[in-house]
Amino acid sequence: QGTRDHPPAQAALRDRLLSAVVSCFKRHGAAAIDTPVLELRETLVGKYGEEAKLIYELQDQGGELLALRYDLTVPFARYLAMNKITKMKRYHVAKVYRRDNPATTRGRYREFYQCDFDIAGQFDPMIPDAECLKIVHEILSDLQLGDFVIKVNDRRILNGVFAVCGVPESKFIPACTTVDKLDKLPWEEVRSEMVGEKGLSPEAADHIGEYVQLHGGLDLIEQLLQDPKLSQNKVAKEGLGDMKLLFEYLTLFGITGKISFDLSLARGLDYYTGVIFEAVLLQQENEHGEEPVSVGSVAGGGRYDGLVGMFDPKGRKVPCVGVSIGIERIFSILEQRLEASGEKLRTTETQVLVATPQKHLLAARMKLISELWDAGIKAEMLYKKDPKLLKQLQYCEDTGIPLAAIVGEQELADGVVKLRDVATRKEVRV
Amino acid sequence: QGTRDHPPAQAALRDRLLSAVVSCFKRHGAAAIDTPVLELRETLVGKYGEEAKLIYELQDQGGELLALRYDLTVPFARYLAMNKITKMKRYHVAKVYRRDNPATTRGRYREFYQCDFDIAGQFDPMIPDAECLKIVHEILSDLQLGDFVIKVNDRRILNGVFAVCGVPESKFIPACTTVDKLDKLPWEEVRSEMVGEKGLSPEAADHIGEYVQLHGGLDLIEQLLQDPKLSQNKVAKEGLGDMKLLFEYLTLFGITGKISFDLSLARGLDYYTGVIFEAVLLQQENEHGEEPVSVGSVAGGGRYDGLVGMFDPKGRKVPCVGVSIGIERIFSILEQRLEASGEKLRTTETQVLVATPQKHLLAARMKLISELWDAGIKAEMLYKKDPKLLKQLQYCEDTGIPLAAIVGEQELADGVVKLRDVATRKEVRV
Repeated sequence: QGTRDHPPAQAALRDRLLSAVVSCFKRHGAAAIDTPVLELRETLVGKYGEEAKLIYELQDQGGELLALRYDLTVPFARYLAMNKITKMKRYHVAKVYRRDNPATTRGRYREFYQCDFDIAGQFDPMIPDAECLKIVHEILSDLQLGDFVIKVNDRRILNGVFAVCGVPESKFIPACTTVDKLDKLPWEEVRSEMVGEKGLSPEAADHIGEYVQLHGGLDLIEQLLQDPKLSQNKVAKEGLGDMKLLFEYLTLFGITGKISFDLSLARGLDYYTGVIFEAVLLQQENEHGEEPVSVGSVAGGGRYDGLVGMFDPKGRKVPCVGVSIGIERIFSILEQRLEASGEKLRTTETQVLVATPQKHLLAARMKLISELWDAGIKAEMLYKKDPKLLKQLQYCEDTGIPLAAIVGEQELADGVVKLRDVATRKEVRV
Repeated sequence: QGTRDHPPAQAALRDRLLSAVVSCFKRHGAAAIDTPVLELRETLVGKYGEEAKLIYELQDQGGELLALRYDLTVPFARYLAMNKITKMKRYHVAKVYRRDNPATTRGRYREFYQCDFDIAGQFDPMIPDAECLKIVHEILSDLQLGDFVIKVNDRRILNGVFAVCGVPESKFIPACTTVDKLDKLPWEEVRSEMVGEKGLSPEAADHIGEYVQLHGGLDLIEQLLQDPKLSQNKVAKEGLGDMKLLFEYLTLFGITGKISFDLSLARGLDYYTGVIFEAVLLQQENEHGEEPVSVGSVAGGGRYDGLVGMFDPKGRKVPCVGVSIGIERIFSILEQRLEASGEKLRTTETQVLVATPQKHLLAARMKLISELWDAGIKAEMLYKKDPKLLKQLQYCEDTGIPLAAIVGEQELADGVVKLRDVATRKEVRV
């Protein structure tokens, strides 16, 4: 349940999609790493907050207690700490596992690919962070998924908001988790969860509500830097200062048009410490001329400066920022689009079918195809001793093979091959 | 334990190796499929014989009872049956899981890649089987791993041998499993396991010993076809007839030089029903001029005509033959060779580093690199506001970036970029 086989047409589409993403990661100078699907359970414990219950655990069959990785970020942090690496730009494309309620029509599965790009190391502020946003912008533009917006916020700004609204520090994370639901629930429901489940005072909740419903650009940053309360809060001020710097860099990259500083963005995971972001696709304007509405998150990420230190015996920190591309959601969209267009994706790359028009020529076919393979040419033949020529040409049409190399008695006698263009039916002897 | 992270240098080598294998599979017209790492436990039960104890099981956390796939063949058979597919040529490159005793120095892990190519469907005999052997031959030749031999046998011939040696049919599989150990143990030990553990009569064991120590080519096939006992056994005769046909096809493919018909080859898995094969690398002749010795299996496979039917509610069979490339063993060999050669594999593909020679030019770097990325050029810059030029050029040398695009105050004023060849130090203004 919640997993799926990929038949050839889907596997081919996925390959195409993954190579677009990987080529962007490589364009930005990332190296690949690979980590096991299995991690020690203790590695995953305490990293994911409320979501930890979704971790798949392996049976105790003797030996270590294992679990399936939940994302690629925690294994990356574990890898850095284990190998004492303090600087690295890496990408990782692999499957992760979550015992979630699958919603397969919306592209949500229990086994799914993640495509992660992360920059680890102590650098000047906001330069790597800006590059992560540039990457999201490049990938979503390249894939022509339609209009999108990248929401940006900072955990420090959120924590500042909670502080000035009178939330005790012990409740920052629960408050954050609740704010995160604003993309799915109206403010009223989020407010009642804050007050009811999370035990915030109604005044604090209302006060938070005034902040987290704000979104804008540089103007909003400036406004909040002037906010009498927020500007007095040290972490909020740091966050806002960095946000301003980030917008400066994004202007140089020419992508601020798609960026929205959005105080409702919180991100569910515990480990973020600074900038956070999430890209959502916008539905094309509908017939009523209404504003575009979000149709779901397709990329997300942020800064997590404390995670690597959790794996280091001496707690040495390695600052990190990274982005994860939500390949499954994008895959669903591309799949639907391909279906609607009626276009048929080839599932093989075969260039030529080796065919014979008469009987008793299997040996000739086998000799010829062997020569073609040895020359690096992608070639197939039917696995029949004496197939009909029509069947062989039909196979080309069904599978999109553009050429047939036909060898008959005459061709054998003349020492040639008849090369036939399947679409135009033109033939040449070579 | 028994798993490993792949740092960038290993990941790059693995990528190179996997693409060589995949490009061969594509050359033979295979389509890709993907199946989940998780399978229902019941899918895997009863397919692997003695090896089943090595299956990783997931904890019962509610819902279905799951296990990690043990190979890619059983999931492929399950996929064919589930989708009622009766004809398919597919490849699948993915990780599989075995709770084996890891021997990591010899490239044996608990999590490892398999690269499988299989042909499913009812075809004329031995044509797809011959193609599988051609694929093994192509891949091992392409990778220049040194001399190798592909051992070929047929389960029907082995069963015929057991029958004429007086083994009851119920003991064919145990006898087969024991013969399979002949590549690691001397005949004496295999014989004593047959008589002791498996309960064969000493006479039967001795008789089997006479057969399974034979190996050769077409001559041996002819000899066994004349064997007074074996030629009377129906399945053995079928197997020998097909073996003869296979050799005919392999002659057309020009690869019989590396093929050995070897009666000691048995293959451990239960599901094989016909042709089986295994490729082993041969150690280069040593100083004493001794015969080359096997240094381990690097590919294997065979025909399994009954497996798909085990997943079909009506037991409908789909004949299959396939090959699995032992990528981990090959990877170990290539890794050792690379190490010995001192060659350093680049782990990134960056073409140009965007650099500045003076301070306060971060904006110029960011603008230029953004243009390069948008033009599809693989570019990096250091994440520092004011890095020293020497540091920037050093980074190019360390990571193998061939070019530096330098933009200083003069270049900015002139509207040019100084392009520097890192190795030769030659510069041009563009």
